[in-house]
Amino acid sequence: MTTTPHEPPATDAPPTRFLNGDGPKSAADLLATIPPDTGTDMYGNGGAVEELEQYTAELLGKPAAVFFPSGIMGQGAALTVHAARHISSTVAWHPLAHPEIHELDTITRLHRLTTRTVGDPTRLLRLSDLEAVPEPLAVLLLELPQREIGGQLPTWEKLTSQVEWARDHEVSLHLDGARLWEASAAYDRSPAEISALFDTAYVSFYKGIGALSGCCVVGATDVADELREWRRRLGGTLYGLWPLAASALALLPERLPEMPARLAHARAIADALRPVAGVTVVPDPPHTSMMHLLLRVDEPTFTANAARILERDGLQTFRGAQSTIDPHVMKVELNVGRATLQLSPDEIAAAIAELIG
Amino acid sequence: MTTTPHEPPATDAPPTRFLNGDGPKSAADLLATIPPDTGTDMYGNGGAVEELEQYTAELLGKPAAVFFPSGIMGQGAALTVHAARHISSTVAWHPLAHPEIHELDTITRLHRLTTRTVGDPTRLLRLSDLEAVPEPLAVLLLELPQREIGGQLPTWEKLTSQVEWARDHEVSLHLDGARLWEASAAYDRSPAEISALFDTAYVSFYKGIGALSGCCVVGATDVADELREWRRRLGGTLYGLWPLAASALALLPERLPEMPARLAHARAIADALRPVAGVTVVPDPPHTSMMHLLLRVDEPTFTANAARILERDGLQTFRGAQSTIDPHVMKVELNVGRATLQLSPDEIAAAIAELIG
Repeated sequence: MTTTPHEPPATDAPPTRFLNGDGPKSAADLLATIPPDTGTDMYGNGGAVEELEQYTAELLGKPAAVFFPSGIMGQGAALTVHAARHISSTVAWHPLAHPEIHELDTITRLHRLTTRTVGDPTRLLRLSDLEAVPEPLAVLLLELPQREIGGQLPTWEKLTSQVEWARDHEVSLHLDGARLWEASAAYDRSPAEISALFDTAYVSFYKGIGALSGCCVVGATDVADELREWRRRLGGTLYGLWPLAASALALLPERLPEMPARLAHARAIADALRPVAGVTVVPDPPHTSMMHLLLRVDEPTFTANAARILERDGLQTFRGAQSTIDPHVMKVELNVGRATLQLSPDEIAAAIAELIG
Repeated sequence: MTTTPHEPPATDAPPTRFLNGDGPKSAADLLATIPPDTGTDMYGNGGAVEELEQYTAELLGKPAAVFFPSGIMGQGAALTVHAARHISSTVAWHPLAHPEIHELDTITRLHRLTTRTVGDPTRLLRLSDLEAVPEPLAVLLLELPQREIGGQLPTWEKLTSQVEWARDHEVSLHLDGARLWEASAAYDRSPAEISALFDTAYVSFYKGIGALSGCCVVGATDVADELREWRRRLGGTLYGLWPLAASALALLPERLPEMPARLAHARAIADALRPVAGVTVVPDPPHTSMMHLLLRVDEPTFTANAARILERDGLQTFRGAQSTIDPHVMKVELNVGRATLQLSPDEIAAAIAELIG
């Protein structure tokens, strides 16, 4: 299940300000995040890779971490390792979980596991959804926050009740923590406190942190050893992984402390948007530093307005919007990053109001 | 099937000269191969990735090329795409093909294909080996040169007779061209002439070329489109693949013309080794710029001799040797690279004689 974003026509004037995320980065900017005296690994052993693995394991309070070049690979490997330790080979997740809608069915078609969606796509997973599953599960994947419904987070109590359910039913727990850093700020709990609820956790180094590609999966030592075998089978044990790892190692200590400010800014943006007619913030107030906006506008109007703002103000609002079931409502995702922090909530609200007008 | 290399004890003096390959590279050296004005891709689209794909497709005379972060991934995807176009799902290859001995059974355990080794591990594949296969095959993987038997290459006539057999039997042909650049020099035929015999070909950019990790698989346009889907499923469509691609793009035009000189040096080394008692060169003369050496020496003597040479001359001969079935014979692999070219054949022969003595 995917929806096609409608792209506005290209304009001659390059944008100078960005509503979303960190803004674009040049190769030179990204290369500058790799110290030239970086220790090189060979096939994942040694150097910056080992250093990043130790750093991440400590940060998440787990015995071991394994660096992967991508989240699709890391999560596929983690689910495979969990399934191998259960009689069931069924992986359960939210109907809008990343592997369900963005990964070309890799878990069924490549990893050959059985998948099952649990709950309603329009809301967070509930304990009652889990209780309604009659078949034995191997592993439950929970995504914190749940990106596709605007970055919603269950309350800590609801989360722990689901974790308890899984423990009671001997179901392994895997955290899709692509945005765990953001969840950590929102819960006001350390990444390790959240990760402690799970057997394995995946964290991303390019989303939020802004490093080159790559991620880690953390867990027990025996699980990590097996993850390394699957990384090799999947073709992820590159001759050298150090450029990716070094970039993450440099940026993590710098970007992690920024998460609370991004959350505060997201909530201030929602405050500024609340009086704007034709805008629905999902969720309101935002649970994390991201939100979805439902805009009462048709696609041609949205596109023309976005192009005008870009042309006139050099401001890139959204590169496109997603259709919804209502032809008069478009959906966009707003991730508060370094570029967003450069714009005041009022400026952002004014630009979004103009997208509708 | 793997054998454990016996590592010599660490020495305090770092080596200054290297018998094998290009010698070690620092992060700074490798980063310097990425131009800072490199165009970045997003999830494999655009920038240096697209440029390298076009360059490689042209070099290999195929309609399309797909960049992969690793050969294990690229070859796994290629075999999967071929198998999907056949009733049979059986992949045939030499008993010492890379996926058979170095990839933790990824083709059977991850890609869920059936594999079959054809021929004798101690020699090249023969037409009669193929003729003896009674089951229908989906795809035949040929490795040129055959690394694990010292980089042997079939004669062009033998190669084309095997290709004809596959065509007659409607078996797809995939080239493991990890060392195609070296095979091209040895056949004195362009990479495109060799690749023309195959439906798909994999070529490496870190072996031989010395770039950061990465490779391409070339083939028909529809095959390439399907390869891209599998790259995503395998977790290889990184947020940005451009650092790897840019490094290959910079080094290919510089390193490809060096291949004939490496071949000539390999043959001169074999000439110098021929009078040395206790050394067998496999194959003799070398077919390509690599060779295996069987050394009549036991492991402790080899290790002590290698350590002494390193300590005394700053020369790293071999970091270890493989056992053979004969406890008095050790095996090493010699790849002629940029570092090897700095040493005369006589110097090399003298060092190898001392490893035995």
